[in-house]
Amino acid sequence: MRNLLFTISFKGTRYHGFQVQKNALTVCEVFQNAVEKVVGRREDIKGCSRTDSGVHANHYCISMKTVCMIPCDRLVCAINCRLPDDIAVLSCREVPEDFHARYSCKKKRYIYKIDNSEIKSPFLEGLAFRYRYPIDEKLLDQAAKAFLGTHDFKAFCSTGSKVEDTVRTIYRCDVHREGRLVIVTVEGNGFLYNMVRIMVGTLLHVARGAIAPNEIGAIIDAGDRRRAGKTAPAHGLYLDEIFYE
Amino acid sequence: MRNLLFTISFKGTRYHGFQVQKNALTVCEVFQNAVEKVVGRREDIKGCSRTDSGVHANHYCISMKTVCMIPCDRLVCAINCRLPDDIAVLSCREVPEDFHARYSCKKKRYIYKIDNSEIKSPFLEGLAFRYRYPIDEKLLDQAAKAFLGTHDFKAFCSTGSKVEDTVRTIYRCDVHREGRLVIVTVEGNGFLYNMVRIMVGTLLHVARGAIAPNEIGAIIDAGDRRRAGKTAPAHGLYLDEIFYE
Repeated sequence: MRNLLFTISFKGTRYHGFQVQKNALTVCEVFQNAVEKVVGRREDIKGCSRTDSGVHANHYCISMKTVCMIPCDRLVCAINCRLPDDIAVLSCREVPEDFHARYSCKKKRYIYKIDNSEIKSPFLEGLAFRYRYPIDEKLLDQAAKAFLGTHDFKAFCSTGSKVEDTVRTIYRCDVHREGRLVIVTVEGNGFLYNMVRIMVGTLLHVARGAIAPNEIGAIIDAGDRRRAGKTAPAHGLYLDEIFYE
Repeated sequence: MRNLLFTISFKGTRYHGFQVQKNALTVCEVFQNAVEKVVGRREDIKGCSRTDSGVHANHYCISMKTVCMIPCDRLVCAINCRLPDDIAVLSCREVPEDFHARYSCKKKRYIYKIDNSEIKSPFLEGLAFRYRYPIDEKLLDQAAKAFLGTHDFKAFCSTGSKVEDTVRTIYRCDVHREGRLVIVTVEGNGFLYNMVRIMVGTLLHVARGAIAPNEIGAIIDAGDRRRAGKTAPAHGLYLDEIFYE
């Protein structure tokens, strides 16, 4: 039995997230279908993370145990040929038997793209959240530093989540501009439900002056979801990188 | 009567080019529909250029004579609200009565995006032509200089074109790399049918060693379409900028 680690990339627009759901198209199901055509059986796969409807991935990791003996490089080509245009396998390699795409993960990086322009771009629709008012990205970058470190992020978790331990560690939280795009980068050891999107929503509260840049620390401390910003839309979010040992 | 100049941007994937056609969705028709909803009548519009199915535009110009007195900035917003996500009005301004989006044009710039990677990207499908073999962009940039100047570009015109005068002047023809993308930039006083796409196809002949870099001059001089390269696919081509006086 081999244990394979696939890195894939997908444009999430058409999908109801990664995880299989009844009556909804998911990345997991489409990937499993493509694998089945290649290896001749329906393999169980483990994704590194749940992702919401419309969320994209530059790098998403999947582990899969299989008796299939096709070499990794040929698997990449064969599966890619059977995937739609909005999902691509980037790489495949063998990993130890106890490796699990989700539980072996040490760190994740997300990026959030804000299209900071008065006029929409035909090339960014569904790929960045358009915010038409001015953003001072340097101010936001400063404010974002309050997220760094180990905190109880209860205020940054959508209600309805069943997770009990809401303590997470954030290693990096930066805001920078690339032309009309303002990009928020967040690395952490794990993320609560909608956590990055609520962090971005809170930074946008800072951008429009609804809260002071130095108020974020107090919002974290208060642990009250209602004091944090709105959940920013899914289509600006990208799972960017998954880090293993 | 006002004469208005609109600059728009569009992702050409869904469209059969700009120019109205029977039984096919075109950018012109969709734009006219949006204008009609705003100004209350179907205005005749002049596009700066015909574009093929699947070709994109970063900047495309349209002139329109109208009795409508809505200020330009409000027209931009009102029309944008009525356009689908893949077409955007970037600006609108009043121009002299004798201005014509096509005939007043002095220079056009096209760019062609080649996705030079073995693995497809979900975010580039339909937006760049994927070419999986190595490209030496510096060699191509050198070879591209043969296109500069005034030449009879008969060899770079698709058969079936009815244009009689095939002499055009190319002011700029560069090739550079941005990560996995190799980008060809061409500026000229006018372009024959499929001219940029055949130029790119010929540069790709150079890339794979089918012709020597210094052979392009001889292909231009021979004026024989069969000696130039294949017409590169439409979906890598962007009308990038239109220059008026």
